[in-house]
Order: sequence, then C-alpha cells, then structure tokens
Amino acid sequence: MSLRNVNEDLARERRNCTFDPTELTYLLDGGEEKTKERRDREKFFLSDPNLKDTVPAEYLSHKEKYENAVKKACYLFTKVKQMQGEGSAMEGYRQVLGGTLGSAILKDGNPFTLHYVMFIPTIMGQGNYEQQIHWIGRAWNLDMIGTYAQTELGHGTFVRGLETTAHYDPRTQEFIINSPTLTSYKWWPGGLGHTANYAVVVAQLHTQGKSHGIHPFIVQIRDEKSHKPMPGVKVGEIGTKLGMNATNNGYLGFDHVRIPRENMLMKNAQVLEDGTYVKSPRDKLAYGTMVFVRVVLIQDVASYLCKAVTIATRYSAVRRQSELKPGQPEPQIIEYKTQQFKLLPNIAACFAFKFSAAWLWDMYNNVAEELDEKNFEHLPELHAISCCLKAVCTADGTAGVETCRLACGGHGYMTCSNLPSTYGLITATCTYEGENTVMLLQTARYLMKAWEQVSRGEPLTPTVSYLKTAGVKTDEKWENTLGHVIKAFKQVAAGKIRTSAQNMDRRVRNGYSQEDAWNMTSIELAHCSEAHCRAFIVEKFVESVEALTVSPPLRAVLTQLCELYAVYWLLQKSGDFLQYSFITPEDIEGIQLWLEILLERLRPNAVGIVDGFDLCDEILSSALGAWDGQVYERLFEEALKSPLNSIPVNSSFHKYMKPFFKSSL
Amino acid sequence: MSLRNVNEDLARERRNCTFDPTELTYLLDGGEEKTKERRDREKFFLSDPNLKDTVPAEYLSHKEKYENAVKKACYLFTKVKQMQGEGSAMEGYRQVLGGTLGSAILKDGNPFTLHYVMFIPTIMGQGNYEQQIHWIGRAWNLDMIGTYAQTELGHGTFVRGLETTAHYDPRTQEFIINSPTLTSYKWWPGGLGHTANYAVVVAQLHTQGKSHGIHPFIVQIRDEKSHKPMPGVKVGEIGTKLGMNATNNGYLGFDHVRIPRENMLMKNAQVLEDGTYVKSPRDKLAYGTMVFVRVVLIQDVASYLCKAVTIATRYSAVRRQSELKPGQPEPQIIEYKTQQFKLLPNIAACFAFKFSAAWLWDMYNNVAEELDEKNFEHLPELHAISCCLKAVCTADGTAGVETCRLACGGHGYMTCSNLPSTYGLITATCTYEGENTVMLLQTARYLMKAWEQVSRGEPLTPTVSYLKTAGVKTDEKWENTLGHVIKAFKQVAAGKIRTSAQNMDRRVRNGYSQEDAWNMTSIELAHCSEAHCRAFIVEKFVESVEALTVSPPLRAVLTQLCELYAVYWLLQKSGDFLQYSFITPEDIEGIQLWLEILLERLRPNAVGIVDGFDLCDEILSSALGAWDGQVYERLFEEALKSPLNSIPVNSSFHKYMKPFFKSSL
Repeated sequence: MSLRNVNEDLARERRNCTFDPTELTYLLDGGEEKTKERRDREKFFLSDPNLKDTVPAEYLSHKEKYENAVKKACYLFTKVKQMQGEGSAMEGYRQVLGGTLGSAILKDGNPFTLHYVMFIPTIMGQGNYEQQIHWIGRAWNLDMIGTYAQTELGHGTFVRGLETTAHYDPRTQEFIINSPTLTSYKWWPGGLGHTANYAVVVAQLHTQGKSHGIHPFIVQIRDEKSHKPMPGVKVGEIGTKLGMNATNNGYLGFDHVRIPRENMLMKNAQVLEDGTYVKSPRDKLAYGTMVFVRVVLIQDVASYLCKAVTIATRYSAVRRQSELKPGQPEPQIIEYKTQQFKLLPNIAACFAFKFSAAWLWDMYNNVAEELDEKNFEHLPELHAISCCLKAVCTADGTAGVETCRLACGGHGYMTCSNLPSTYGLITATCTYEGENTVMLLQTARYLMKAWEQVSRGEPLTPTVSYLKTAGVKTDEKWENTLGHVIKAFKQVAAGKIRTSAQNMDRRVRNGYSQEDAWNMTSIELAHCSEAHCRAFIVEKFVESVEALTVSPPLRAVLTQLCELYAVYWLLQKSGDFLQYSFITPEDIEGIQLWLEILLERLRPNAVGIVDGFDLCDEILSSALGAWDGQVYERLFEEALKSPLNSIPVNSSFHKYMKPFFKSSL
Repeated sequence: MSLRNVNEDLARERRNCTFDPTELTYLLDGGEEKTKERRDREKFFLSDPNLKDTVPAEYLSHKEKYENAVKKACYLFTKVKQMQGEGSAMEGYRQVLGGTLGSAILKDGNPFTLHYVMFIPTIMGQGNYEQQIHWIGRAWNLDMIGTYAQTELGHGTFVRGLETTAHYDPRTQEFIINSPTLTSYKWWPGGLGHTANYAVVVAQLHTQGKSHGIHPFIVQIRDEKSHKPMPGVKVGEIGTKLGMNATNNGYLGFDHVRIPRENMLMKNAQVLEDGTYVKSPRDKLAYGTMVFVRVVLIQDVASYLCKAVTIATRYSAVRRQSELKPGQPEPQIIEYKTQQFKLLPNIAACFAFKFSAAWLWDMYNNVAEELDEKNFEHLPELHAISCCLKAVCTADGTAGVETCRLACGGHGYMTCSNLPSTYGLITATCTYEGENTVMLLQTARYLMKAWEQVSRGEPLTPTVSYLKTAGVKTDEKWENTLGHVIKAFKQVAAGKIRTSAQNMDRRVRNGYSQEDAWNMTSIELAHCSEAHCRAFIVEKFVESVEALTVSPPLRAVLTQLCELYAVYWLLQKSGDFLQYSFITPEDIEGIQLWLEILLERLRPNAVGIVDGFDLCDEILSSALGAWDGQVYERLFEEALKSPLNSIPVNSSFHKYMKPFFKSSL
C-alpha cells in the first residue's frame, strides 16, 4: 500500500501550495524536536503488527470487539512500559489514550482508559499521603485495575442528585456502600463492565445521623484472583452504544457492601474513627480538575475535527464529479464553492479550537498556581470561560465532523471512511463532562453577575471587561477588518447579555420568582453564553496569530483562516449582528463577498493546510483520506476485508432463501 | 412488560392533555377505519415471535446480522403473502418495507427491499409489454430476486457520468456489458452483495458506433440454482456503514458479459435487431418516478422524526433532574424552557413535513395525469419544488433526530434508545436520491429562470408567483400574525433570489462566464433555494391547518404548532428577515416572546401530541420512549440482553489480563 503512487490531482495540489506545510507542523507541535518525538512515538506503536487488526473490528460481534480490545490494550500497555525506559512515563499513557494516537490504535475505545485517566489521578488528587502510598504503587503495577464510578442511571451532570449512599458504622469503622434504588445504580463508567476490579465510587456520605454530600470511596468490585464480582456487588456492561463499543461501559449496584474507613479518599474532607466529619478547607479545588479535563477535551475535539477535515479535503481534491462547464472534464469537487464552504470554515475551526485550548491551558496553570497559595480569585472566571468553551467547541466540532462526512457523499457513510466512527467519538463530548446546555447556562450565570457589576460600576474580570464599553452604540461605519469584526462580536455578546438581563428583570418585576424568571429566559441566556464564547474565540484567534513568529506565507494563510472563522460565524448569526452591532443590512453583502474571497484565496492551500496537521495514514485510518489519495483502490480493498466476501455464496442462501423461493412457486 | 404500570409523571401528562390524541391519530391516518387497518397490520407482524430477536441484532457480527436479516425477511414476505389473501397486495409490501413498520421489523435494513421497491417497479415502468409479461411474473413469484444497480464507485447523483458500458453486437444480437475502470464498478445497490441474482443495470449504450447515454438492462448476476456469480461477474458486499448494515449493499463489475438484446428495457428508447437506435418520445417521464420516490422519502423522514420526538418527549416527561427551585423535588426535564426549545419545534416539523408531502403527492398525481396526455407543462415546477423539499426536509429531519438524541443526554447515546439507529437511517436520506446541495442548486436554476420571467413581465407558475410582489417594500408595520409571517417568509425568499440574480449578473458583466458566475454565486443560490422552500412549507402548513375539519381543541394545538414552526425558523434566520423583510430589529424581541409563549402553551400537550402519532412500542423500539415510561427498568433489562453479561467473568480475563498483570509485577 505504501508504495502506491500519489494521485496526480493531490500531487498537483501539493505543488501549488504557497507555504511550507512542515512549518505549520512544527508550529502545531511546538517545534521540530517535538514533531520528531511525536512521529517516533507514532511509528513505535502504529507500525507494530500486533496492534493492527486483520479483520477490521467493525465486522466482529460486540463480545469479540471487547475481547479484541482487551487483547490489544494489554499488549499496548506492555509496549508503553518498554517506551518508558526511554522517556516520559505519564506522557506515554496520555498519548496512547488520547484522541489522536489512542483512537488510531483502539478506534472504538479502550477498556483500560479510566484506570489511567481517572482512577489513578483521583487517588493522587483526593487521597491523603498514606492513601497515595497504599494505592498508587499497586495501581501502577496493575495489581489492581480501577475505574471511576460517578454517574448513575438517574443522574449525570447534576452530581448533587446522586443516590448511592455511604453510611459510616463507627462500631466496625466501616462504610456501608448501598444502592437504595434502581436509579442509584452506577451507569457508564468505562472499563466497569468486565475489566476493572476496583472503582472509585462517588457516594452520599452519612455519618452520625447527618448527610454530608458526595465523597469518593475506593471499593473492590471483583476478586483479584478469580475476577468474580465481590459479594453484594452487581456489575456488568450497559450494552451497545452509538460509538465507543470497546470501552466496556458498565453498571454497578451495591447491596450494603462494607469497606474499611480508610477507603474514603481523605485528602480533603475526612471521617474520623468515631464518625466525626471534618470538612474540607478547600471545596473549590475540584473545579481545577474539571477545567483540566476540559482542556484535554477541547484538544481531543480539535484532533477529531482535524482528522475529519483532512479526510474530506483530500477526498475533495481527488473526487471529480459533474460539470462546471459543458464539454470540459469533470472538476475536482473542491472547485465547487459550496464544497469549499463546507470544508474551509471547519479547517479554520480546528485552529480556533487549538488556540482557545492553548489559552485555557495557560490560564489553568496560572490559576492552579494561585490555588496553591489559597488564592481563589480567578477560579470563577476560569470556570465560566471553560464551561462555554466546552459547550461551543464540542457542539461546533461535532457539527463540523458531520458536515465533512456529508461532504464526502455516500462514501462518507462507509465505516472505512472513518468519519462515522469519528462522529461517534466526538458527539459523545457534547454530553459527557457536563451536558452542553447546562454548561452554557453556568457561564450565563457568571455573565448575569458581570452585567450587574457593570450597572453598579464595579470592576470586571478580563474575559468580560468588554461589557463596559461594547454596548455603547457609535456612529462608526463598518469596514471589513478584523478590528471591526472583534468589535462587532463583542457588541453582539454585550447586547444579548443586556437584553437577557432586562428580560430577567422584567419577569421578576412582574411577580415571577428569580428561578422562574431564569427558566423563562433560559433560551436567550444560553444564546448569550454562546455569543460571549464566540467573541472570546475570535479575539483569541486574532491575538494568537498576531503573536506568532512565522514566515510571511504561513502568516498570510493563518490570517485568512482567522478571518474566515470570524466572517463565517458573523454571517451564520447575521440577525444578531444586525440587531446589536454597528453592522447594517447594506454591509452584509460586502461581508458575504469577503467570505467568498477568503474561500477563493484559501482554496489552493486547503490540501497544504491539512497536510500540515501531519496525521499519518494509520491515524486517519480512512480509505478516503490517505496521503496517496488512491481513494477507489482503497475503498475496494476495504470491502474485500468483509468476512461476508470470503466465500462467494453465503450459507443463508441454502438455509433460508432457497426454501423460501420454492415455497413461493 | 406490557402489564407494567404507567409511570405516574407520564400518566399525569396524559390526564392534563387538552385535546383527544385519538382524533389526531385518525386525522393523520385519514380516518378511523384506516387507523384500525394500520393497527391490525402492525399487530399481525409485530406480535409474531418469529420476527422478534432474542439477542438484539446490534450484538451480532456483521455476517450474523446479514444472515439474521435474510432469515427474517424470508419469513416476513411469506407472511405478507398470507395477508394478501385478505387485502391489498402492493400496500402490504410498501408497509413492511417502509420507514415505520419496516424499520421496526428489520431495524438495520432489509436485503430484499430493492427487489420490491426498485427492481419490479423499474421493469413495470420501463419495460415494454412483452418484457413485463416475461419478467414481472417471475419476479413476483421469486423465481428471481433483483436489485437496481445505478450508482458506481465514481458517480452518484451525476448520472450522466456513469461509466459502465453496454455495446450492442448485431451479429449475435447481444449487448456486451462491461466495467472499463475500477470507478465504473457498481457500488451501493441494496441486496446486491449476496442476495440478488438479477439486477437492472444502468449503463451507457453504444450501438452502430454511437453513444446514446444511459439505459437500463436486465443482467443475471448469479446462477439461479447454485447462487454462484455468473461468468465475468464480480460481485460482493461493500462493507460496514454508519447504518443499514443488514441491507447487503454490494459492488458489481462486468468483464464483457453478454446479454440478449431483449434484456434492454425498451418501453421508451429501443435498439432494433440491426442495432438501429430508436429514441424515446418521452424523455421527461423519468422525472415523474423521481418525484414519486421523493414523496415516499419525505414521508419516511417525517416518520423517523416522529419516532425521535416521541422517544425524547416521553423521556423528558419521565426524567427528573437538577433543580428549578431550591428545596423542591427535581423537576421533569420537560419543564426546562431549553428542553422545550429542543423538542417542540421538532414536533412541529413532523407536521410541516407531513403537510408538504401530502401537497407534493397531490401535485404529483395531477402532473402524472397530465403526462398521460402528453402535457409536460407543470413538470419543471413539480421537479423544482420536489428538489428543495427533498433537501430541506431530509436535512432538517436529520438535525431534528440528532437534537432529540442529545436532548436525552447519555441515555440517548445507548443503542437501546433507538435514536442512534434512527439517525443512521435518516442521515442517509441527505445523500441518496440526490445529494442535498445538488438538489438545492437544481431548484435555484428554476428560481433564477423565474426571476428572469419576473423582470420580463412574463407569467409565473403558482409556487413562484410570489416573486412578482413580495420584493416590493411596504410601510406596513409588523404584527405577530400568521399572515405577516407568510408575507415575511416570501419577502426573504424574493429578496435572496433578487440578490443572487444581481450577483450573477454583476459577475457576468465583469467578464466571468455564465458557469463561473454560477459557481461563484452558488453559496447564495443554495440559500435562495432553502428560503424559497421554507416559505413554501410555512404557507402549506398554514393552508393545510385552515382547511382541516377538526375539533376546536385540536385546531388550537395544530395552529400553535404551525406558528411555532414558522416563528422558530424566522428567529433561526433572523438576519435574512432583518435584511429583506419588513421586520425591524425592534420587532425581534416580540417575536422571541411569541416563541416562548408558544412553547408554554404547547408544553402541556407535548405528550398528547406524540401519543397522537400512535407509534406502538415495537415500532419505537426504545427503552426511553415506551408507552409506560418505565425508562430505567427498560434500560436495565436491555443491558442484561448483552451476551457479555451472560457470564460473570469474560474469557479475556484469563487469556489476556491475568498474564499481563503478572508480567507487570
């Protein structure tokens, strides 16, 4: 396969590229050395025949998919240990579990992921010194394999509603873990079904007759030797899903299971031997972890979208269809403006997400340092911006992957395009780690408070400081510049926030309770939050590109992408801009033309940009997106891998069809 | 399961409904008698244990899924024959293959569908009298099982580009069917992989040294007895897909396969014995069939969306989460305005699609009658409106199903919600029977011609007659009435069409060719087409509701749904309305309030409306959407059906995990 010629259309695209994609690759990796490291790591794993499937996993039964995943995961982590000898330990795990390399090795999820991503980090973050000593070594050595059990059948994002109980019994110094209802069963944790033998279980703590809210407990769920469920433990998998069918998501119920007092993770709150509850002095610490997870999530979303746009862009350069001019050869479909309109704004979004994630990562690190010094000042702002970024990036990324899939026509519907599976992974991010509408409304609370601060003349935090001035209408005339774009995005956000605040006030004045008014205004509040987020993303995109040290040709491309992202969303939401910004109906046509010119300018570099993402064929895992562009050969080769094609006549012909046809005579 | 109590929240919703859902059911079916017939038919099939799966198909391997589908399909058609004794033949087939009953029996597709839906109808529509005599009887008797092979690896919607050739050889009076390239391989036909032994093959006809474009040929592809591929025929399945994995989509290549001259379907064009080509006198007839298929498609889309909104609405009445007011019980999530905003516009869309499909069906029948009298006058208009309706309904329906799935949170991601599989079915409609962007641009061509007619003062066809007056700005002040809504939608469509026409003209004046100008303007042209379609849907919705004979309570609900559909889309596209209609920025807030009031009014009837769709539990096939609302019990029962859960310890523990853990010590 690797010796194949590159499709001539694709080769020509590469020759005509106006910048050096390698420069982009180094930029995105953080330097040439980092690129080399990453490529070496990818080669180390992806060229290993033991990590390749002879029959693609999608042809297996659900049970076989799981067994195949366990087999590969065991082999994979052995290999990580080999690599560790040579370098960074945690980085290796992070990579082989993440959205780029990880989803190339185990396309449909890895049943061990939560052991490394949640079980060990939770013990490290929430266990006290003795607990870390006791558990971490065992967990690293795989004496135990853990998962993190928080979500229940009845409750997800609203964690206060969790029903699993942990009652302390001072006589035996044990907690009694119990599932009082069907809805209290744990539901979803990855690896919980048949893989993990321990779990961090989040439960409502009761001691000395009082309830103290949710706390984490380490509970053994399977015997270490026999792997059989422990007495009083009901455990199994939850069944098939839209995607991630190898993650072995499980359910877990407890019938008064007793665990030692020491199994409550006590770095923060504690229960003493006599049952005395000692409150945590730093309640807000958990927010930090949540933000960390969201940064990773946005990076993963960017990586899924990068995959999808790489596949769809290369395919669009290779696919020739229909006619633009009578008598001429069929054009590459990337020549169609409507196709460019599907691809290029999503390519731009990849960069928007990456720059926002990078900014959020920096802010997270700053705030984390402050937290160490018991300074909680910037935590609410960090939390607010991370909530709306989570919602907007996951929703846009999901829609973007789907646009890319549909832009590949029927072939995008094939599993071997890898677009359906990428969709299965990315759409899940809209729901987990905080359902998107809930996330938007959390940011909206922060924005409403900020608006009150404006009206009281109080100082504002940096991400909302624009509220002070953006609402003021000016006589300025619109021009197609990034400066004006940023201004207009802020005017829209400020205008929508003001309107929502006014509607809230009006409803409260009319006698509705604060809560009812909030609910009645919540559609607009969610839109506020989105508008605020887009203004933020656009501004960070502009600032990030300006701050880069890059060659003029690459800068030109990045600036065009930045403009395209902004102009695309401006036109998508043109009603908001006509309502709240200094843009007039007469300006819209000129902005539409700006968009069309940007598409025209970016089009020759589309393949170069996605090449710059440097996603190797094994990561793309797509008949449509491979480097060589031999789309049709690859589609055909993939079809031949179907076990149904291994014999010319399927047994069902003799077994069912023949007797049926005879009976019809 | 059927004896279960109804969830109390759901029962209360039903008690509080202000209209009689049964009246709605009768209305949608076309009368009480029709409802009874449908229910009897559904019971006849869905209560049959032989058509139920003990292990849900999603747990099987791809090969097993196919074999299971063949088994069930054979049984199913035997049953259809039984039923035929009692009534309408073709109707029975249509029902067991359609989007409601059909997708309940074989959730992931039926490998025999194309035999009944395309193979037989094509012979009936395009075969001459002798050919019908020869083939139809055999096809009905299942002496042969056929499929329809048009799309190729290299060409789909653009049928002129098909590459398969049929060269006529007058010496032997045979056609030589050949696949000259890899891209000429047939790709996608349902049932082609391992099921069909005959196919209608669409190929480029060559005779007497001339090419005559594409024509249909009956080609035997497998031996009737052994089922082995015929000499020179390469056939197999194309592999797994996002959905419909039991349809056995196949590929097909020919190495100079000879078929008798009589196997060309010759109702229209003919090839005489000596190779003389006789042109069809009625080229335009094929359009009629395309429109028929689109009507069925829109009905299917409506049915998928009805399923999704039923599931999501009932779940939203049962699911309680978070808090609206401190200290109060968790509310049903349907109480949240943001949730209503996800559900109710999609419920409204179900009706919008149904009314548009009904209108299109009437127009199709009128035009079909005219065609019989060689009157082609209304064909272009029929074609134009059917293209944009196909694109808009399939795209909106797909987005709607996904919104419903996401509105069910994590549980919507479970296969047993039936939302992922419904998505797999509905999203395919965006691509097949004409890719949506291509469809929109076909309508746009008609609209550009209509605009020229306006400027020349020529008469216009009914669906575009609004172009004459809608563009004229008036001093009228906006009011929240349906009359004003229709007016504004038409102003938007007319305004966008005018702008696009002007941009086309400008580009042509600036020296671009007509074709380049078209491509450069195509993003706006596609938007024109969408705006035109929405104006049409809104107007037909209003007219249809007005024309109904229903009780006042039901009329009130239908009118609210009609208003909601219109107002929802007005706000979604508010930029267009501010740019082109008499709506001003000051009006928008009042329209937003109108939307919120409609949500408030419709909310108590949400469950009643979806109950009125009368989709039985077997059709919904959803743990979240069942009549009794016992969501959690059903989720748990479904999980227990996973073969992985049949034994407590999976073999992979001993085989892979244990050795791996040991090696880690």
